Amino acid sequence: MRDFLPADVRKRNYVVNIIKEVYESYGFEPLETPAVENLETLTGKYGEEGNQLIFKILKRGEKLDLNDKELADLALRYDLTVPLARVIAQHKNDLPKFFKRYQIQPVWRADRPARGRFREFYQCDVDQIGSTSMLVEAELCSAVSEILQRLGFNKRNNESNEVKNNFIIQLNHRKVLSGILTSADVPREKHTEALIALDKFDKIGDEAVAQEFAKLGLAESFYKLSKFLQTVNIKRRENIREFANKTTANQRSIFVSQSNESMFQIISDFTSGQEGKEGLSDIKKIFDFIESIEFDAVILINPVLARGLSYYTGTIMEINLVPDSEFEDFNISIGGGGRYDNLIGMFGKEQIPACGFSLGLERILVVMEERGMFQKLIEEGKLNLNSADLLIACFDEQLIGDCLKLAEELRRQDLCVSVYPEAKQNAKPYKYAEQINASFVCLVRENEWAENKVTLKNMRTGEQETIDKASVVDKIRI
Amino acid sequence: MRDFLPADVRKRNYVVNIIKEVYESYGFEPLETPAVENLETLTGKYGEEGNQLIFKILKRGEKLDLNDKELADLALRYDLTVPLARVIAQHKNDLPKFFKRYQIQPVWRADRPARGRFREFYQCDVDQIGSTSMLVEAELCSAVSEILQRLGFNKRNNESNEVKNNFIIQLNHRKVLSGILTSADVPREKHTEALIALDKFDKIGDEAVAQEFAKLGLAESFYKLSKFLQTVNIKRRENIREFANKTTANQRSIFVSQSNESMFQIISDFTSGQEGKEGLSDIKKIFDFIESIEFDAVILINPVLARGLSYYTGTIMEINLVPDSEFEDFNISIGGGGRYDNLIGMFGKEQIPACGFSLGLERILVVMEERGMFQKLIEEGKLNLNSADLLIACFDEQLIGDCLKLAEELRRQDLCVSVYPEAKQNAKPYKYAEQINASFVCLVRENEWAENKVTLKNMRTGEQETIDKASVVDKIRI
Repeated sequence: MRDFLPADVRKRNYVVNIIKEVYESYGFEPLETPAVENLETLTGKYGEEGNQLIFKILKRGEKLDLNDKELADLALRYDLTVPLARVIAQHKNDLPKFFKRYQIQPVWRADRPARGRFREFYQCDVDQIGSTSMLVEAELCSAVSEILQRLGFNKRNNESNEVKNNFIIQLNHRKVLSGILTSADVPREKHTEALIALDKFDKIGDEAVAQEFAKLGLAESFYKLSKFLQTVNIKRRENIREFANKTTANQRSIFVSQSNESMFQIISDFTSGQEGKEGLSDIKKIFDFIESIEFDAVILINPVLARGLSYYTGTIMEINLVPDSEFEDFNISIGGGGRYDNLIGMFGKEQIPACGFSLGLERILVVMEERGMFQKLIEEGKLNLNSADLLIACFDEQLIGDCLKLAEELRRQDLCVSVYPEAKQNAKPYKYAEQINASFVCLVRENEWAENKVTLKNMRTGEQETIDKASVVDKIRI
Repeated sequence: MRDFLPADVRKRNYVVNIIKEVYESYGFEPLETPAVENLETLTGKYGEEGNQLIFKILKRGEKLDLNDKELADLALRYDLTVPLARVIAQHKNDLPKFFKRYQIQPVWRADRPARGRFREFYQCDVDQIGSTSMLVEAELCSAVSEILQRLGFNKRNNESNEVKNNFIIQLNHRKVLSGILTSADVPREKHTEALIALDKFDKIGDEAVAQEFAKLGLAESFYKLSKFLQTVNIKRRENIREFANKTTANQRSIFVSQSNESMFQIISDFTSGQEGKEGLSDIKKIFDFIESIEFDAVILINPVLARGLSYYTGTIMEINLVPDSEFEDFNISIGGGGRYDNLIGMFGKEQIPACGFSLGLERILVVMEERGMFQKLIEEGKLNLNSADLLIACFDEQLIGDCLKLAEELRRQDLCVSVYPEAKQNAKPYKYAEQINASFVCLVRENEWAENKVTLKNMRTGEQETIDKASVVDKIRI
């Protein structure tokens, strides 16, 4: 777990504010839940591995027993979806029929710390509860795309001067996955295990997945799947390569509809059952809706996308960054989500449909840092890491009151003003101004002050001049 | 622990944003620390009672032992001061010489839940590290006053039309307390216990404090104190009564300096030693600085203010709300703080001076709710609890794409737009618009849409009209 020093907090707040603004513009409302939930609310919701990663809180006061179950009664929030489901069940009467909420809060997992993995990290979730319409999915894709565009995940082509997003959204559907498995003769009771294996296709590759299937006694099924998987894989690589060559929004739009058309065909040819058809029909609707919105985002079908989580019942979505340079991995997933129509019923009497998306804040921050995107935002004046516009310093205790008053007057004119807190002859205001990133230093010295003058130093240019104290604001504002 | 539904989050964010803005304008920088600290960082810092209230986190994985110390290795943050002290010691080289930080995060205490007391609650701390100058105290008082003024803790006098803050700041000094106890012949080794008793003066009254002193074998000392305490008490009541009658800023300024002058005299007369003098001299400096700033806040000396915390080494500050009506208690403390020059040394090799202030967010929110201050902010257009400016609804699946596109266009013009997520004949958009506090509803209907028209209903006035879709923005913006 990490401390966030001022510059870290400011960068994170910049990103979080954009996420909030976009979600609010779509009518999503803020929700916050406590860090601590009843242990029983969390256990059994995240699989066996998840259970092990829950931070449990020791009972208080009473005599403790060695049995683990008795020792802890509370636990730290593990994700934002289960608390949401609990809130829906618990506050149903206080919530609108369709509840659109976003939630940006930390979660805790007792993971082994590793590079880019933390035991405390923020999730940015957005969910819409109560509707089965695919317009929900369309709006989620649109909102998330807007967030990434506003954060600067796009690139200007030097020749054509056109701006291209450097992310793509991948779509799949639980029913498409089921249809594919059924067509490969995987029996229904082995679907979950087979999916877990299939989900690793991108990470561990063809042969390793074959081995996992063999372990499950599904060698035959994998044989049936393998040609389909190869075709899909070739097609996907082709798509991503082609995407790189499309420079105009119009080209991209045509490319998206063509490549999805052919992927549709590949899936339809392989899956025969009703289930697969239903899944494809949902995906088709999402595409139609998104086409109406006409936003410039590349959304591709990926029929092997499963995203591990077993609670998805419908759409599965993932957002991936496209490499900024050839040294980067294509597979940077910075968020994902899907439809989970059966989760809320675990907490209440009623089964309520739901669909959501979660952005990985830490991943976004790491990539923005690596790609110099914060530096660019600072240069463009959109992000400010300075702690103050101005540092006021004096070397004489008698003048402190005057400094405080000057600071107060300047703050009323919307400047951020810090006062050097020691009035000593050996004070080092310039050094301190550098430490706190103050843009200007104002020295209040007895002789000058008697004539209503101060010395103002521009810390960036090094320029220094003695000016009327009334004109400090104008000098800083230039 | 509580869930914060959207209206709660919005109100809290409104308050938190003002706190942030003001602290940042003073050059305080944001810091965030993890919710979880090592247990040993927290134990022994909050007294015996505090130790009992720490939420401890069960060790993970290993075989557990019945000994409590072995069972837990981590704990939930109990306040924001100890984590700050740890950060200072740990990140010393990454922090400026004088570190001005604010921190607004939840803390957890395993308290018995009671009215207005929660086991998870937010603290808003502001601290300045590294300086012993009283200008730090003066700036803290000034910043906190500005926050309360901006939140609306003031009242307009109907006759004079002058605005008066309805809060006061009380000041004391650890050395003044020591001086008083010494003058009452309390031996140094009993100062801490005597202070804990004295601190209850306002709550449990004269006789109860006498009993506590008697228990400590200090009956004689209390006898010596009692006349002083009575005089102080009468003077304080008088001050508060008089304050109520001052309507102009000028009157208040004169009143503050006069009443503090006479309180100074009362204290000086009673305390004879050097320590008391040093304390009074610090307080005097704070008053001088604050007088220079000329801000309209009433700051009164209260020589019995101790605020329980044993780690204060210098100034002790508390901010109290003045009753808004005769039914309210005077003693609503909504924040306090002080100087703690010996705490940071507990975590590092070096003793570093520090002074801070903590605002009680929950208390502020409760009082603002009780006094109808949020309602007033809503009426003034400063606070908006609406989830959307506009709800777009259609009753025909074919029109969903058009609705989504219209929504997108309106969002680009800075409106918050929600789309009713079901296109069914029996949809009830008006009822839903009421639930989510949408200001307008836009109906997209086939016949009208063919002519580029929509029906717009103003949910506040009930007015409804069919207009050109291009003029929706203007209608809403009026």
